[in-house]
Amino acid sequence: MDYLKIFAPATVANVSCGFDSLGFAVDAIGDEMTFTKTAKKGVKITNITGADLTYNVDENAASTVVKKMLSEVNADFGIELTIHKGFSPGSGLGSSAASAAGAAFGANQLLGNIFPKLELTKFAMFGEKVACGTPIADNVAAAIYGGFVLVRSYDPLEIIKLPVPTALRVVAIHPQIAIKTKDARAVLPEKISLKDAVTQWANVGGLISGLYTDNYNLISNSLIDVVAEPARKKLIPFFDEVKSSAIAAGALGAGISGSGPTIFALCKGDEVAQKVYNSVQESYKNTEIDFEMFISKVNQEGIKIIN
Amino acid sequence: MDYLKIFAPATVANVSCGFDSLGFAVDAIGDEMTFTKTAKKGVKITNITGADLTYNVDENAASTVVKKMLSEVNADFGIELTIHKGFSPGSGLGSSAASAAGAAFGANQLLGNIFPKLELTKFAMFGEKVACGTPIADNVAAAIYGGFVLVRSYDPLEIIKLPVPTALRVVAIHPQIAIKTKDARAVLPEKISLKDAVTQWANVGGLISGLYTDNYNLISNSLIDVVAEPARKKLIPFFDEVKSSAIAAGALGAGISGSGPTIFALCKGDEVAQKVYNSVQESYKNTEIDFEMFISKVNQEGIKIIN
Repeated sequence: MDYLKIFAPATVANVSCGFDSLGFAVDAIGDEMTFTKTAKKGVKITNITGADLTYNVDENAASTVVKKMLSEVNADFGIELTIHKGFSPGSGLGSSAASAAGAAFGANQLLGNIFPKLELTKFAMFGEKVACGTPIADNVAAAIYGGFVLVRSYDPLEIIKLPVPTALRVVAIHPQIAIKTKDARAVLPEKISLKDAVTQWANVGGLISGLYTDNYNLISNSLIDVVAEPARKKLIPFFDEVKSSAIAAGALGAGISGSGPTIFALCKGDEVAQKVYNSVQESYKNTEIDFEMFISKVNQEGIKIIN
Repeated sequence: MDYLKIFAPATVANVSCGFDSLGFAVDAIGDEMTFTKTAKKGVKITNITGADLTYNVDENAASTVVKKMLSEVNADFGIELTIHKGFSPGSGLGSSAASAAGAAFGANQLLGNIFPKLELTKFAMFGEKVACGTPIADNVAAAIYGGFVLVRSYDPLEIIKLPVPTALRVVAIHPQIAIKTKDARAVLPEKISLKDAVTQWANVGGLISGLYTDNYNLISNSLIDVVAEPARKKLIPFFDEVKSSAIAAGALGAGISGSGPTIFALCKGDEVAQKVYNSVQESYKNTEIDFEMFISKVNQEGIKIIN
């Protein structure tokens, strides 16, 4: 293989109770990237569209990953990249993760598919570190594995792919404001009460049980975040209104995607998802803030080759 | 039905990462209780063997539950109870829970089986409160539902029964020292770091995923408690030695049962369980402390009628 084009999905990390542990990939939006083998060694970004990102191969989340992989196996060829961002950086939907995970996946294809998904996740985490300062795994793992993932451990890295009930739908709204991951981290408490921690892990247990048993009621009951959401929601204008309108329209639950500002809602079935979409859209129209929205299935397969 | 005899199992609560949320029932030890309908209203304890417990019907964990249930439905009969304790109060194996849960189950049978398990759990929690001061659900729910249970929420009470891989075995050692639940609570931190909390709920997620998928490796990797065990293990003489010898002998993991002093280990299969039993027994022989041990399957059915 000398060339491929891929789709790298946007991802929702944290997922209410699963702060820093859970993530899932969406189907509707993501990046498109191409990878071309070159005789000349090294990595080069030849085109970036859809967002204003650096072409510096040591600073771009995608090219750093490709460079590291080529170097690791001492490849006798190089790779040229193009990146079309299908959604905005800073949305809380794993923009740098899509680029980094897509880069790991694409380079691996040109290398003859020599790395398993866990290793691709580690390479992609390196790209996350370059882009965001922290080698967070939840978004990149969700993009690479697809579906819901649990980051069970960082040392050693252990990723558990969880099942996804087939009727699960995502509705998301991205208010057009910027929240830096660093600022979203800064509002988090360093310590939490043992009581809140117990509540949170009981809900993680409930959510995961619900995913294994297609129990939408249990998923709904468990989509509660008593740790990050109370601290972070003040950074997101009209968060409470969006969440209330989503739940009033039938959503199983709603929360902050990653570190925001995107707010996601999970729903059972297309009909409810459309109602939730309409209701959230209506509630945000009255604000002065621009926004984008989408409805999506949960992406089951992760990054895919599109030609 | 005018009479029944039941077996109410001992239970392991907390289960490493699942502090205050997870529990499971064991097969090998528990209480035997009899329930006899009487024309005279009210509840009476006619015999207690195996432990020195109060006959005062308003202070005994079993009779308070029966009394509350009879009163709730305005029953036109009474119940006489006998209790044979098959294991020691203060062991950390849910002694008061077995009595309280057994009482709820037995009284319900004489009442014509009118209450579902969730309601029985609530009645049993009342007995826990009388006996221990706190209406903790994890032990009583494990005794009533059997298998592994997750207490997803207290308000409203929601109990999730989790699957149990068939080869799972429990080895437990009960050093003959007393730890009061109150003291075990007092050593717990009121606050924990967000980092530790994330570690804990990622492991809860891993353990529950492992139970759903028969993944013993994942169960093993997830049996980590960075919250309660570090604080409580100092109350249990030779905890580290027992845990190390259990794991060296092949246990999937080991931890404190409830608030101790019993230490449990989970193992895959009878052969490993026997090795772990022998190894732990050998390690404790050298101490000056008396101890009891057992090997057990995980009890799948909860409380059962034995004649």
